[in-house]
This record gives sequence, C-alpha cells and structure tokens, in this order.
Amino acid sequence: MVSTDKRLFTPGPLTTSRTVKEAMLRDLGSRDEEFISLVRDIRRQLLELGGVGKEQGYEAVLIQGSGTFGVESVLSSAVPPEGRLLIAVNGAYGERMVQIAKRLGLAHEALRTAENVPADPAAVRRRLMESPEATHVAVVHCETTTGILNPVEAIGGIVREAGKVYLVDAMSSFGGVPLNVAEAGIDFLVSSANKCIQGVPGFSFALARRDRLIACAGNARTLSLDLYEQWRGLEANGQFRFTPPTHALLAFGQALRELREEGGVAGRAARYLANHRALLAGMRRLGFRPYLDPINQSAVITAFHYPGDPRFKFDDFYTRLSRHGMVIYPGKLGSVDCFRIGTIGQLHPADVRDLLDAVSAVLEEMNVALPVAAPGLESNG
Amino acid sequence: MVSTDKRLFTPGPLTTSRTVKEAMLRDLGSRDEEFISLVRDIRRQLLELGGVGKEQGYEAVLIQGSGTFGVESVLSSAVPPEGRLLIAVNGAYGERMVQIAKRLGLAHEALRTAENVPADPAAVRRRLMESPEATHVAVVHCETTTGILNPVEAIGGIVREAGKVYLVDAMSSFGGVPLNVAEAGIDFLVSSANKCIQGVPGFSFALARRDRLIACAGNARTLSLDLYEQWRGLEANGQFRFTPPTHALLAFGQALRELREEGGVAGRAARYLANHRALLAGMRRLGFRPYLDPINQSAVITAFHYPGDPRFKFDDFYTRLSRHGMVIYPGKLGSVDCFRIGTIGQLHPADVRDLLDAVSAVLEEMNVALPVAAPGLESNG
Repeated sequence: MVSTDKRLFTPGPLTTSRTVKEAMLRDLGSRDEEFISLVRDIRRQLLELGGVGKEQGYEAVLIQGSGTFGVESVLSSAVPPEGRLLIAVNGAYGERMVQIAKRLGLAHEALRTAENVPADPAAVRRRLMESPEATHVAVVHCETTTGILNPVEAIGGIVREAGKVYLVDAMSSFGGVPLNVAEAGIDFLVSSANKCIQGVPGFSFALARRDRLIACAGNARTLSLDLYEQWRGLEANGQFRFTPPTHALLAFGQALRELREEGGVAGRAARYLANHRALLAGMRRLGFRPYLDPINQSAVITAFHYPGDPRFKFDDFYTRLSRHGMVIYPGKLGSVDCFRIGTIGQLHPADVRDLLDAVSAVLEEMNVALPVAAPGLESNG
Repeated sequence: MVSTDKRLFTPGPLTTSRTVKEAMLRDLGSRDEEFISLVRDIRRQLLELGGVGKEQGYEAVLIQGSGTFGVESVLSSAVPPEGRLLIAVNGAYGERMVQIAKRLGLAHEALRTAENVPADPAAVRRRLMESPEATHVAVVHCETTTGILNPVEAIGGIVREAGKVYLVDAMSSFGGVPLNVAEAGIDFLVSSANKCIQGVPGFSFALARRDRLIACAGNARTLSLDLYEQWRGLEANGQFRFTPPTHALLAFGQALRELREEGGVAGRAARYLANHRALLAGMRRLGFRPYLDPINQSAVITAFHYPGDPRFKFDDFYTRLSRHGMVIYPGKLGSVDCFRIGTIGQLHPADVRDLLDAVSAVLEEMNVALPVAAPGLESNG
C-alpha cells in the first residue's frame, strides 16, 4: 500500500515516515514489560536530546494529550497559588499561556512585543527589576505563529541571575533546533511528539530540573494534568498513571531512532534549513515577500505576505494547493495579511520544489500576478 | 508482516483488528477537509451508538487524553463551583471520581458499597432526600475493578425524578453493553476510544444533553479540559481546539465501521458474552471460583479468586502467561485476593480457549493444585 496522502507543509500534525507509522501496527499492553521498557528508553532519549540526563538532576515526563495539555500541565503544576508568572508574548502560543494563566487564576503579566519582534532579554531584566514579586518567567522558543525564534538562552541567563523559575514552550523547536536545557538555564521545557521529532500526535512531554519538579508537589489544579504525580507514577513502576497512547509511543520510539540515524538534532536542523532555504528562494523567485527579518527566522515555518493582486484570495489558494496534494498551514496572522508554510516533518528539498511548482501552477490558475523578483534577492535568505 | 503480539485479555489498551491499526498508515492535516469530515462522522456515530442524536438535543464531544482526562473534563465542566456531587462508589473508578472531586475542590460525597455489591438505587434515593443540596450524581456503569455492572438505568430514573444532573462513566461498557442515553436519563456519559469500540488509545469522548452542556460555560478549571469550549470549537469549524491525535481518530473511524459490520452494540455484546461464558466455564473446569455473583457480572472483565494452594503467586502466574503470549490484567483487588481477565477487544471464543490452555499449562509449570470442579457447576455462569 503506497500512501497517496497529501504532503503536509504545516507545523504538525506533519508528514511522518512510513516506518514511523508502521511501528503502530502492534498492540502492546500498557503494563507489560516491553511497553515499560519502551517508555523508559523514550524518557532517557528525550533528556539526551536536551543535552542533559538524570545524573545531572533532570527528568523527562510524558503527558497524554496535545502540546497545550503539556503546557497547561507545566503551568498548573510549576506555579504555586502564591506565585506570579511573567510571560513574554509575541504570537498565538505566548497568548495561549496568558489564557491558561487566566483560566488557572494565576497572578500573571504579559510582556508583549510585535509578532515580528523577538522577545527582548533587556526588557525581561527591566521587568523583573520593576516587579520583583514575579516568581516564574515563561517564553515560547519558536513562535509557530510566524516562525520567529526567541532568544531563550539570553533570557535564561537573566532569569537565572534573578533567581526565578524558567519555563520554555519549545513545542515546534525541540529536536529540530539545537538547545541545551542546562546551559539555557531552563527549569521546565515542554514539547510534543508530533513536531521536530516527527512522531504522531497523542502526547506531549516536559523536561524538568528534578528539584523544581519536586517543588511542584500539591500544586496542580487537576488530577490529569498533575506533572509531579505523573512523574512519581513513571518513577514508581515505569507506567503511566492513566492509559497511555501506546501506539503513539511505539511510533515515537521509531521516530527517535530515525532522528539518531539522521545525525541527531544537528542533522535534522540541517535538513530543515535546506527545506527552508529552498522554500524562501523559490517563493522569492515567484515574487512573494517573507514577513520576518531573516535574522529572526527559524527553519520551522515561514510566513509570507499576501501578494498585492486583489485576485489572491487565501482560501482559494489553500484549497487549490490542497487539490495539488500540498497542504499548507491554513489561517492568517492576526495583525497582517500573511500565510504560513511549514518545512518540518518527513519532507526534503525535493518536496519543497514540488510545492513551489504547485504554488506556481495555482497562481496561474487564479490568474494572480506577482512582481518579478529583483535579481540577487534570493541570496538574502 | 504478521503480528506476533501477545493477545491482550485486559480492559484496554486491547487487541485491535489488523485493519484498525492499518487505518493509521496515513498522515492527515488536522485542519484539512478530509479530517474534519472524519471527526463529524465519528461524532454522529457516537450519538447513534447511545441511541440519541443532535435532533433530540444531544451532542458528542471528543477530548484528547485517556479516559480519566474525559471524566475530569466532565466533572470539572459540569459541576459549578457552588454544586455538590454525590458519587456512588464500588471500585477504583468510582474512587477516582472522588479523587478528582477532591483535587478540583468540589463539594462531594461518596456513597460506597462493597466491591461485589452493585450501587443501590434505593440508597441513592434516600441520600438525595437526606441531602437535597446535591446537584449532580455520578456512577460508573461497568466497574473495571471487578467487572460489576451498576444499574445505571434505575439510578437514572431516581436522579431525574429528583431533578439532579446525572453523570455516567461508561468507560468500559459503551459500545459493548446496550444502553440508551436518553432512556437512562443520562446528562453526561464518558467513554474512551480503546474500550468496546476497539479503537486505539489517545482520546475519550462525552455524550451530553445540549442544554446541560451549554450550562457548563465558564465552569472548567483548566483550558485543556474545558468540555464546553471543546464542543464550541468542534461546532464552530469542525476542528479540535488543540492538535488532535489524528491517527487514533483514523483508527476509530475504522473501528466504528467494524462495529457496524459486527451488528452494532447487540452483535458485539453477543461476542463478548460468548467470550465471557467460554472463560467462565473453562476457568471453573480448572477449579477457579469467580468473585462476583453471575447476576451482577458484565462480560467485559471477570475477577477470579486466587487458588488456595500457596504455590500460586500471582506475579509468577502473570509472567508465565505472558511468556505463553497471553496478557491478563495485572494487579489485584484491594480487598480480596483476586485477579482479572478481560474478554473485550478483537478476541473470540477460540482465543479464550487458547488462553485456557495456557492457564492450564502454567498451573502445571507452577505445580499448583486446584480443587476439581463439581459437575454441573459450569452451567451456572
């Protein structure tokens, strides 16, 4: 059976390898030794990907549900009732942390920058001096809204210096953008199975400093999202407290194997960069303008301005591309007319070239005219 | 590739069909039309399985995570801060609702019966008369702890008469035990993908009376587990608010197809009953005694007393059976020395006979002697 599925140029769920999906053709008992051993290996490898280990005082905790479940598990477990959370926001996922804090009734404050401006370490430092009652600082590593990379290492140095707890949403970066959790001073990092590690969706995970995790005891507002109890359960007998998505974990075990075979985070980052560069060059050639300054741009997802031609309607563009077998990220930015194309998942520059051919064909179908790119512009990306 | 996996005689994750697993060999975009249409079909079919529909004022909501996430989503969304929850408890899953209520800070009260005694409708009625401040009543349909069936219809009549809101955890029964949600007066029913519908684990779902669901607005303690907002999201654009487990949903679509092909809930219930009867007869022949009175026993999972012979050690029994390719439910009851064997999932009486052969072989390996069953006893099950 050859998959005829569309290629997913999205930030996830994304196109996974055939072998990752085939790893799900099994039924394992969630309390049986083989599964327990799989979970143990996965937890160890996640720490390794973050450049840390149990012996350095770090722990990996798996949490059922989507990435947002993982973020809410961390926020609701790490921030005690008397805590106060400072959130650097420059996109939808920063705003989601604000939403979560509101829902949990956490004292919190958002430090906002425009969607095309990275979080500013100096502003974080100033804010922590002005509001010393803040106990926790949170930021998104790669804001999937635009693909912007926030300076999590620089902010981490400031948070550590100020003696605060540091939470990083590394949902769409972990495994595809090099990051050392200890060096960045991160106390809790959250990511998900179906991003750069290229598993299927079904669970998220947190890497945490053990002492910070132990301090979470009793904080969580719900049983399901209690990060501390989830960790205690995994440590006690290697099992999830509640039924795990066994098939998604089997897929993830295979995905981690394939990540190693690709040369780990460095190898994967190189492929994503090649994808992104092919996309940027090709889109510029077609006359599209990227939204972000290249210096702030990740290789995960790229935002492009709508063409000026009024015949360009995004929904039509999206649907036509989908008919060509190419799924881009639907929806637009809040502030400006932009669309997004992801370049993570089991995709290579050849797939990007196929996408560019489809974009070109669709523009012709739609009779949309774009300005001809100035020569040389392509090399700027 | 032929699966050499062990057969899972557990209450889930369970043995699923090859075709259910193969449905996961695809990657669908979570915002793409094909996936949205799959989610719509699943929601409609779930209502049908409960004997209700949108036109009668019922809604189906899918929730990422395990069954406990679904139960906590319902409890934390349905019971307002000023509410009071009466929970009928006769096993671990009733106790889990008590745990959730404690964690959420809900005013609550447990009405306990022994693990081998069904919840008593008359006791619920008395309690509601003595404590009229109760606003919600919760009970587990089939307590997976023992396999006992609670009289959810009779309790439903009393709850409705008293004008309270009725929550039923039908985790291990829905799809395998006939139940009409409207006739039983159920306001919120929770179940999960990997029980009697025979999908893979990754999400749970609630069936709810629409007016009761609308009354949940603003109650949920977390963003992730907000049942009302999850429903609003699904209604607004057919999409999950947060990344869905796309592969688990593909598997579930196929599982629902196979449930229809088997003759719906009635057909499946008949097979489970055949499995259970084969198990009970065979285990009695080997000298085992069931824990429950047959009148209270579901066909989902069956508890057996440990044999009197001190050479019987459960862990050894479990491990040896597992080596024979048969996984039973590990762990024992809190109160008495019993072990459990599940008979749901893609298993037939022939599989049960293989299990019985393995049990017999393992008893011989362990040199455990059982009393010879009295003739005629087999027909009691």
